[in-house]
Amino acid sequence: MDTEIINNIKVLAIDMINEAKKGHPGIALSSAPIIYTLFSRHLNINTNDLTWINRDRFIMSAGHGSALLYATLYMAGYPITLDDLKDFRKLDSKTPGHPEYGKTPGVECSTGPLGQGLATAVGMALANKIVQSRFYLKEKGRFGKVLREEILDHNIYVLCGDGDLMEGISYEAASFAGNLRLNNLIVLYDSNHMSMDGNTNMTFTENVLERFKALGWDTSIVNNGNDVEAISKAIERAKHEPKPSIIEIKTKLGDGLLKEGTKEVHSGPVSGEDAAVLKQKLGWNLTPFTVSERARNNFISQINSHSSKKYQEWADEYRRYVNEVLDGDNSAFNFLINKDNEININLDNWVIRDDEKLSTVESNKKLIDNIAKMMPNFIGGSADVNASTNTYISNGEDITINNYNARNIFFGVREHAMGAILNGLALEKFRVFGSTFLAFSDYLKPSIRMSSLMKLPVTYIFTNDSIEIGTDGPTHQPIEQLALLRATPNLNVFRPADFYETVGCWKYILSNKTTPNALVLSKTPINVFNKDSVDLVSKGAYIVRKEKNLHGIIIATGREVSIARRIAEQLYNESKLDIRVVSMPCQELFMMQDETYRNEILPKDVRTIVIEPSSSLSWYQFVYSKKFLLTLDEFGVSGKPTDVLKHFNYDFESLKKRVKDLL
Amino acid sequence: MDTEIINNIKVLAIDMINEAKKGHPGIALSSAPIIYTLFSRHLNINTNDLTWINRDRFIMSAGHGSALLYATLYMAGYPITLDDLKDFRKLDSKTPGHPEYGKTPGVECSTGPLGQGLATAVGMALANKIVQSRFYLKEKGRFGKVLREEILDHNIYVLCGDGDLMEGISYEAASFAGNLRLNNLIVLYDSNHMSMDGNTNMTFTENVLERFKALGWDTSIVNNGNDVEAISKAIERAKHEPKPSIIEIKTKLGDGLLKEGTKEVHSGPVSGEDAAVLKQKLGWNLTPFTVSERARNNFISQINSHSSKKYQEWADEYRRYVNEVLDGDNSAFNFLINKDNEININLDNWVIRDDEKLSTVESNKKLIDNIAKMMPNFIGGSADVNASTNTYISNGEDITINNYNARNIFFGVREHAMGAILNGLALEKFRVFGSTFLAFSDYLKPSIRMSSLMKLPVTYIFTNDSIEIGTDGPTHQPIEQLALLRATPNLNVFRPADFYETVGCWKYILSNKTTPNALVLSKTPINVFNKDSVDLVSKGAYIVRKEKNLHGIIIATGREVSIARRIAEQLYNESKLDIRVVSMPCQELFMMQDETYRNEILPKDVRTIVIEPSSSLSWYQFVYSKKFLLTLDEFGVSGKPTDVLKHFNYDFESLKKRVKDLL
Repeated sequence: MDTEIINNIKVLAIDMINEAKKGHPGIALSSAPIIYTLFSRHLNINTNDLTWINRDRFIMSAGHGSALLYATLYMAGYPITLDDLKDFRKLDSKTPGHPEYGKTPGVECSTGPLGQGLATAVGMALANKIVQSRFYLKEKGRFGKVLREEILDHNIYVLCGDGDLMEGISYEAASFAGNLRLNNLIVLYDSNHMSMDGNTNMTFTENVLERFKALGWDTSIVNNGNDVEAISKAIERAKHEPKPSIIEIKTKLGDGLLKEGTKEVHSGPVSGEDAAVLKQKLGWNLTPFTVSERARNNFISQINSHSSKKYQEWADEYRRYVNEVLDGDNSAFNFLINKDNEININLDNWVIRDDEKLSTVESNKKLIDNIAKMMPNFIGGSADVNASTNTYISNGEDITINNYNARNIFFGVREHAMGAILNGLALEKFRVFGSTFLAFSDYLKPSIRMSSLMKLPVTYIFTNDSIEIGTDGPTHQPIEQLALLRATPNLNVFRPADFYETVGCWKYILSNKTTPNALVLSKTPINVFNKDSVDLVSKGAYIVRKEKNLHGIIIATGREVSIARRIAEQLYNESKLDIRVVSMPCQELFMMQDETYRNEILPKDVRTIVIEPSSSLSWYQFVYSKKFLLTLDEFGVSGKPTDVLKHFNYDFESLKKRVKDLL
Repeated sequence: MDTEIINNIKVLAIDMINEAKKGHPGIALSSAPIIYTLFSRHLNINTNDLTWINRDRFIMSAGHGSALLYATLYMAGYPITLDDLKDFRKLDSKTPGHPEYGKTPGVECSTGPLGQGLATAVGMALANKIVQSRFYLKEKGRFGKVLREEILDHNIYVLCGDGDLMEGISYEAASFAGNLRLNNLIVLYDSNHMSMDGNTNMTFTENVLERFKALGWDTSIVNNGNDVEAISKAIERAKHEPKPSIIEIKTKLGDGLLKEGTKEVHSGPVSGEDAAVLKQKLGWNLTPFTVSERARNNFISQINSHSSKKYQEWADEYRRYVNEVLDGDNSAFNFLINKDNEININLDNWVIRDDEKLSTVESNKKLIDNIAKMMPNFIGGSADVNASTNTYISNGEDITINNYNARNIFFGVREHAMGAILNGLALEKFRVFGSTFLAFSDYLKPSIRMSSLMKLPVTYIFTNDSIEIGTDGPTHQPIEQLALLRATPNLNVFRPADFYETVGCWKYILSNKTTPNALVLSKTPINVFNKDSVDLVSKGAYIVRKEKNLHGIIIATGREVSIARRIAEQLYNESKLDIRVVSMPCQELFMMQDETYRNEILPKDVRTIVIEPSSSLSWYQFVYSKKFLLTLDEFGVSGKPTDVLKHFNYDFESLKKRVKDLL
């Protein structure tokens, strides 16, 4: 019966690819026995309760294996129909070309860009460790017997190929996972020695398992990728290892096709003849989309035979835990079912004098400490630059192998994996942030894109946000990064001007669960403006200096807002030039306001100048010509901050003169 | 004497950091004996012939160790003065905050963003293997005795820290280097167990050497980082290994400081007291910038004792090779001294019919084959998507461990390392390209930035350039990538419209040695326009459809130019709307033209519309308001290409109607 089910999955996947005239038959045929074994013998799921918080997670990191995934989900009884499979790769279908989070029941994560899935799974595994220890260790004493871990004890399974493992992000994430001994993570590696451009003996001759061993992983090998029992045994073994596990499963790409084991079967449809030969080999009806109900029912009942027991046990344990440990109050679990604590950042907690100077980095530090106190699922970390980004949650403790129930994650110098791990944590309903320097946002751009595609409320904190950092030089001075972030769809990019705007940013960020954020901060101490800005940030832009007779407008962001204010004040005092100063902490939110508001803030036919020391691209939309952009389109230079600013005519006096000359 | 020189290097570095009030004393003190050992015993250089093609290369991958590097270069006799050291981190100095290629004699590569240096060094090592085998194997028969490899037999040495090795890019590059057995690469790993945020037992507990062993590297360990002889022996051994080598050298961060071995000594100046104690420990004069001439002379003479012999031998071998193998004609070496063949892409080689349809991907393939024939240093490869990007040089052979003298590099699924390796090859005067999909340009953005910072003529070929790819869905459909690339300073972004424009792009690319390029290509077959465009590409934009009565202008790029032309033709025929169509293959080049030309192409006060299915950001500068931008600021969708285009009102009829409605 195993074979019949596997064959049914295989032919469905091939039929889908041929119907769509595009797809990846190679992995569909090599990995079918692997995914079948996982689902039939191990994966604990409940297709009637898809958001069951203790379900096992399955991530198809090799996202091009989407046809295989959808065919398996259909056969496994997920709410997907045969028509959905026929609509593979069609517009608005449940079965897009690569798995998309939110479109398909059973798809836990968007995948496709290689390496991202595995790294995101590491984040999910960490999430599970955190909640597991949170609902276990700290209440141990109160529970008659020692509480079993079972309340949240699922595994994260990943199917990946050679391509995933060649990507640097997967190495970073694997090193991180080994370091934190995430033994709930099990990677099934379809080792077929073929990638798109040919045999991996051209490109990838390293000893993968030895590498993972060096990273602190448990490793094992299955030499026959069609041997369901051997695969199953290896998974069973991995479940009990105290380390994350990788199982290398030797397969043949496009197993059963005329050109099996060659790069020709990696992608593209399968010829009619080839498909017919394959189906005959598999003893299958030639009619496309033939389903053996017997096979499907058997598969579903196999899945249920282990899953429903697990589900029932879990429900009992959960009830007992809530009743006996939490005195009937299950609100501690709320965030896991997407019900966050409503929190209110109370400004009364801080007495900020009007003449106090505070950088936005310092402001942010105060805020995250405060938010962490109110929001138990608020966690974060840094890619080894906490010392500079200042995003360590005070009293939040460090996540280590001895203590997962903590708030501070040490990502190491692994920006890219940090992004994906944050995505994984966010998929598991944590509210997360990760910090590095703005110039290094480049390193995690592909993961930021995944946050945006999946609409995850991840907050990227980017400090050292301009040439003003000075001596570290052009490699560390951001220029194009703000444009890059602003160009990314569905990402809010905030560059607050002072303490109160930083409060406003976080207020907006926490109110929004469907948009990732970049929070761009400076280390230059800045005077605070006024409390009103807390609520005005949500409008994207507002007036910080109102004029009587409008001679011109300066738009500025972040650290430059206070400069613009000072310029306006001085020019008014010196020459009665009456300039409006607009702070625009978030372009995206401003562009979402109605035209009336936008025209009120930025009336047409008024000379409008922009001050922001970064790429012009995102600013042309607000000015009449390039000359009004006091922006920066060349790389920075190394030098003392004051010298660097002067070099670019960006010191206060130069800026003031440039503004005056333009009005 | 070893100690005296090392101590002199140490105190100079500390003095520099304290003078600049910023820098990284930790690595300066831990790595000083390492860099000293390398230079004094092994590194073959000639400070009177800095561009000696057979010099050993030294890359400070841990770029924050710049003070140590500059102090060493000064002591080693490079043309750097004590005043230069005093100017550390100051504007316009030879000693910027992080090493910058082109600014400092002896700095072979800009470093600072971690991982980049090591990965770039891999490219340099590959470059050496290619030229070594080119000037050795193929002439073996003609040379009385078997020719020694010595003509180009230098080594590439890298100094790196934990941070470099945590970055995914360094893993990718190391796996690539192991795969190609680049035994001319020797990495000195300053293993001090400290990174910026603390002890690496928090973040980086993997077994680094075991990992490298798994990647096919030779590994060794030196337990005492102050033991010059042990370090030297390990380097000597590594030079004879048939694999790339990594030597883990156990050191103490900030060795000798009061807080040695803690994260506190990673960065920042050293207190006066601490510096004084250190200098006393080292037996050094307290006066800042004290140099022992005895020590300096001894260091220089040690370097000369091995280097000058090597230099002389090489000069003799080179002369013999040129005379006996190349019959006195050394032009084959020209490119290595930055004299490329002037090449002329001869259009007569191709008969393209006016009605012929050819995608720019296909056009590009014809071109790179043609260029490769004329330009021996033209090489390239793909991050495992040749099957789609079509950038394999026909008859160029594959670079493998058995044949380095070839033109096609198989990077594997390692986009990020591809970028850095291309940089390394370009630093060694190869004219290089690397290809992947435009959506995945994100993965190598940090390396593209390094190309731009170093002004290296690397060409990034990005195909699958719009939502038109259809069924692969939003993860594979670029949206923000063109804006991201255009925002990057000193990068030319080309999106040619047809065969002739693609020729023009390459013509410009090959004429320019100081700008990296992104060449953005489509797989949609397009009719060719006319030969004039070959030369017009260098203007950045030009008129492809001239009107009689100017009713409006459409600017388009790439695949959309032919659509714009068809729209203009039809609207003229149907409603006498006379639209100018401007093709803008390169915004950067257009913006470099004088105002007269720009106004001639895009006169003011004419309704101007842009058609390009990607982020608006780079286009606002050419239009009056957003409504004239037929661009795309949201993620794509999975579906048949025609359905996807229709979904975004981007099919031909919709676009035509949108244009008509706007005029």
